[in-house]
Parts: sequence; C-alpha cells; structure tokens
Amino acid sequence: MSILVPPSGTDVHLRDVGPRDGLQPEAPVSVEARVALIDALFAAGIRSIEAVSFVSPRAVPAMAHPAEVLAGISRPRDAVVTALVPNLHGAQDALACDIDELTVTISASETYNQRNVHRNISASLEEITSICGLAADARIPVDAVVSCAFGSPYEGDVAPTEIARLGDRLLDGGCTRLTYADTTGMATPTRILDLLAEVGSGVGLHLHQTRGTALVNAWVALQAGVRRFDTSVGGLGGSPFAEGAAGNLATEELVAVLDDAGISTGVDLEALITVATGLVDLVGHAVPSTLVAAGSRHRRADNAPDHSIDEAL
Amino acid sequence: MSILVPPSGTDVHLRDVGPRDGLQPEAPVSVEARVALIDALFAAGIRSIEAVSFVSPRAVPAMAHPAEVLAGISRPRDAVVTALVPNLHGAQDALACDIDELTVTISASETYNQRNVHRNISASLEEITSICGLAADARIPVDAVVSCAFGSPYEGDVAPTEIARLGDRLLDGGCTRLTYADTTGMATPTRILDLLAEVGSGVGLHLHQTRGTALVNAWVALQAGVRRFDTSVGGLGGSPFAEGAAGNLATEELVAVLDDAGISTGVDLEALITVATGLVDLVGHAVPSTLVAAGSRHRRADNAPDHSIDEAL
Repeated sequence: MSILVPPSGTDVHLRDVGPRDGLQPEAPVSVEARVALIDALFAAGIRSIEAVSFVSPRAVPAMAHPAEVLAGISRPRDAVVTALVPNLHGAQDALACDIDELTVTISASETYNQRNVHRNISASLEEITSICGLAADARIPVDAVVSCAFGSPYEGDVAPTEIARLGDRLLDGGCTRLTYADTTGMATPTRILDLLAEVGSGVGLHLHQTRGTALVNAWVALQAGVRRFDTSVGGLGGSPFAEGAAGNLATEELVAVLDDAGISTGVDLEALITVATGLVDLVGHAVPSTLVAAGSRHRRADNAPDHSIDEAL
Repeated sequence: MSILVPPSGTDVHLRDVGPRDGLQPEAPVSVEARVALIDALFAAGIRSIEAVSFVSPRAVPAMAHPAEVLAGISRPRDAVVTALVPNLHGAQDALACDIDELTVTISASETYNQRNVHRNISASLEEITSICGLAADARIPVDAVVSCAFGSPYEGDVAPTEIARLGDRLLDGGCTRLTYADTTGMATPTRILDLLAEVGSGVGLHLHQTRGTALVNAWVALQAGVRRFDTSVGGLGGSPFAEGAAGNLATEELVAVLDDAGISTGVDLEALITVATGLVDLVGHAVPSTLVAAGSRHRRADNAPDHSIDEAL
C-alpha cells in the first residue's frame, strides 16, 4: 500500500496565497493588517507566500499598496515572496520592489481568459513573454498559473493535451515553472491524474474547494509525485464566480494530513490554526477551514457533556 | 498510476444514513417528510438507506415513530432498509417491522461508550450479542458500527490492533459485518490505511467531515479496496459533539467523484443534488454539501458577469 501514502521525509512545498488570493475578494484591510498576516505566516513556518498583486487598485481595491506591504514585512532569510502581476506595467512596478518570484496568470479557457483579462489567450501569451523578458533581466523566476486547467464553466472540459501545449508555449515564452489551477472546482482525482499524465508531476497545483474536492485532489497529486501546492490560510479566497461555499485548499487542512503521514512542511500546525482563526476577525465572517472550528485532531474533549443515546455515532 | 483510481466498473455500495444520522440532531420533522425523503432517495437510485432509529423518543425526539416511517415508505424491490437499534428492546420493536438490516453501535473508546450509552464496552458487547441472537432468529443481518475507530476525543488514538480485536469480538457475538466510524473526524489517509492493514478491506466506513477529510479518506479507502460507505445526503449529520462545521461524508460529493472515475453507483447525481437541495427547507438551515451551492461539475456559467482583472484565478 506504500504508494497510497507518500513516504515520510517527502519534501512538500506550500505557497500560501492567503494574503493575495485570500484577501483579494474581501473588503480591503489595512496595509498593517496585511503585513501582520504575512509576518504571522512566516512565524508559523510558512516559507513561500504570494504576498501581493500589482493590479489596478480601482479594479481590486483590496490589493492596493503592494509596495508598502512588501516594504513592511519582516522576511526570514530563506523566505520566497511572490507578487502576482497582470501585465507588463505591473511587472515593472513589482520588479522595483524586493520580491523573489512573479506569478502571471493565463486561462486554458478562451472565454474565461477573455472575461478575466479582456484579452484572448494568444494576447496573454505575448504579454507574459514580455514580462518574462523583464524578469529574466532581473533574474527573477516567473511561475505561470494556468486557470481552468481542469475544466471551464464556459467551454466545459479542456483536453489535457491542449493544456500541455499551452504549458509548452508558456515555457517557450520564458516562464520558469507552471502551476495548474482548478479555478471553479471542476477537478476530480481522475482529472488530476489525466492532466499529470500529460504534463508530468513537476508542476504546481492550485486547488479550490468549490465542490469539496481540494484535499482529495491534492492527495492524489501527492501520490502521483506532485510536490508543490498553492494553499490559503483559513481556506480564504477561491473564485468568487462559483456560488456558495468555495475557498482555496486550506493550508492547515493539508498540513494536518501531511503531518499525520510524517511529512514535515516545516509549518507549526497549531500556530497556523491560530493565524487562520484570527482571519475571522480580520475579514468579518467565518472562513472555510474546518480546523478553525474543530482544531487539530490532537484537541481533547475533557469537559464535554454526556451524549444522548446514540446521538453521536 | 492505475492503483490511484479504482477501475471503472468497481462495485461501490453506498448506505445513505441521512434519514437517521442526518435528521437525528435536527428539530423533529414530520413522519410524512421523513417518508418523502426516503422515497426521494430511492427514486434517485439509492438502494440502501439507514431509515430509522428505535431509540427512546424522549432521548431523541427527531427519531420518534420509526414504525410509522417504515410503514409509509415505498421500497423498490432491491432496496435494503436499515434500522439502528440501541438495545434489545429496540431490536424487538425493529424486528416487528419490515426491515432488511439492523445496525448496532459500540465505541472503540471506553469513555465515549460510557458517555454515549452509559455502559462500558463489555456491557455493550453483551447487549449486542443478545440483539444478534434475536436477529439471527429473524434472519436479519446485523452491522456493528464501531465509533471512534480512528481516535477518541477522550483517550486519543486507539491502536488498530485493539480495534481489530473489538471487531473480532463483535463477529464472535453474531454480527454479520462491521463498519468503522470516524466519529469526531480524527481519521486521516494514514490512519485509514493503518486500520485497514489490520481489519482488511471487507469492512464498511462511516466518515465525518469534521476536519475536512471525509472525501480524501473515502478515496484512499477505495484505493485500498473498501467498497462500502455510509454517506448522508446533503452531508447532514455527524457528531454534534465536534464544534463547528461537521457533517457526514455527503453522498452526492462521493457520487460525483465516483461518476467522474466511471464508477457507477446506480445513483442519478443531479436527482440526488435536488434531494440534497430540498433539505435546506426541511431542516431550516444550510447543509454541509458543497454541491448544493455549486451544482455538479457539469453546470455551465452561461450568463456570468465579466470578471475583474485576475480576481478569479
């Protein structure tokens, strides 16, 4: 059965996208609060954080003042700080700051790409190629995040071979690595394995909880050799265009099952749950992570009342 | 990678516990509504349902009138209707009705058993043995559901060898099969495999979503050969003693990933989601299932508004 649990000692790399993907759809919070969140994630042992997005503050008010956020954080020596850039202008601004990585986005779905950035996929590829040129000059790696990689709410399923071709074009354009995103929660274990069979396990995955599959998809990907995951503290974020309970794969939910498999991510689970719990006050509503409510599996019920007969099967 | 997806054609058996485990902690609903729910599940293709519990209506008002519920349902010829019985008296009442299976419960956790049924594990074993004697006379099988099989909120982890010993004693006592329950959401993929290594894959699993792990645990168990799962339409139920978002493994969430793997359960997913959606009105609050909000992965977004730039990565 050993293939069913990745070996302990497996090196799993988590990039927490909570400060960017998580806070982006929320009412704006202060630069100080965003800095405090990033610093708290570092203190809990997270070493890679998508911290900011250099988008128009008119389009996305919650992501305003990225340079101030980056200037405010206290980064550990081994930290990787990532900035999302939507275009060449954003890349120029980002590269003027102290960052370690850029993320760029493109959709595997033509309609989605058009609606998201008002360009077709080819135009996005050209823009990304320009960004990669700038980044290469600054010796900053670029991770291309491919949205709708497991299906589009417009066109339906996108063939894995087509996704793989898009990945090749992104690498040809200068991207240093690829991350595939399940933007609207259409991935299943089967779809994960089908795509990995085409693109290999050297990619990252960015998984959403829209249909409750984020953790099972991550686990199957781990079994198949994937070692990089975007996760979000508290499960915040996810596509605002999927109705109802959505959210990203919660960092602490993945860390919890990895810990129990003896796979260390360097993250202190209890500290991370404390950070996730603090988000409830920050964003003013409940967050998707189950561990905020339930705590880790090490929590004990010392003072629980007696049960009703068989009520708690 | 074939081991990572169970082969299409795999025969997976779902027992929907929504009418019992799901409705039990809710405010009581009418006998007619409970009958309608069970009939709707049958109509959606579910063939095994834990329909009622013969507990004291004073202890669990939502489970009152089990005989009336059983008399009211329209069962397909191949249906299996299960009644939970807490003691010999309940078993006598259940066996006077038209049922196909009994479930009995016992905890792997001494403290939990004491608090749940005010008896120690040995006394529960004696009671179950008596129930099995009655059931054998009536040629009705008895499934023993072992709670806290993946850890207890009181004692912590329970050794798989100890769980296996309890299972053996239940079989010795006349139980015809065993189902292991993750009562407070302490199971992880690793714990699932550890227990299956001791008890074999011929058991059933009853999984809770307390810590977000129900689906990944079910998937790993499927990979390891388990073919029987308790699930609950809408994800209703779960232990009321785990704080916050809990719930059982939602039938439709499991069916959705099985469908996508080409594994038919005989269930019509869209019909099942409709039943789950109807629960919101029945119980008067949101239900845990993500598919009630998001719909199946086949749902299309024909009239979605344009996105903000990169808002929907």
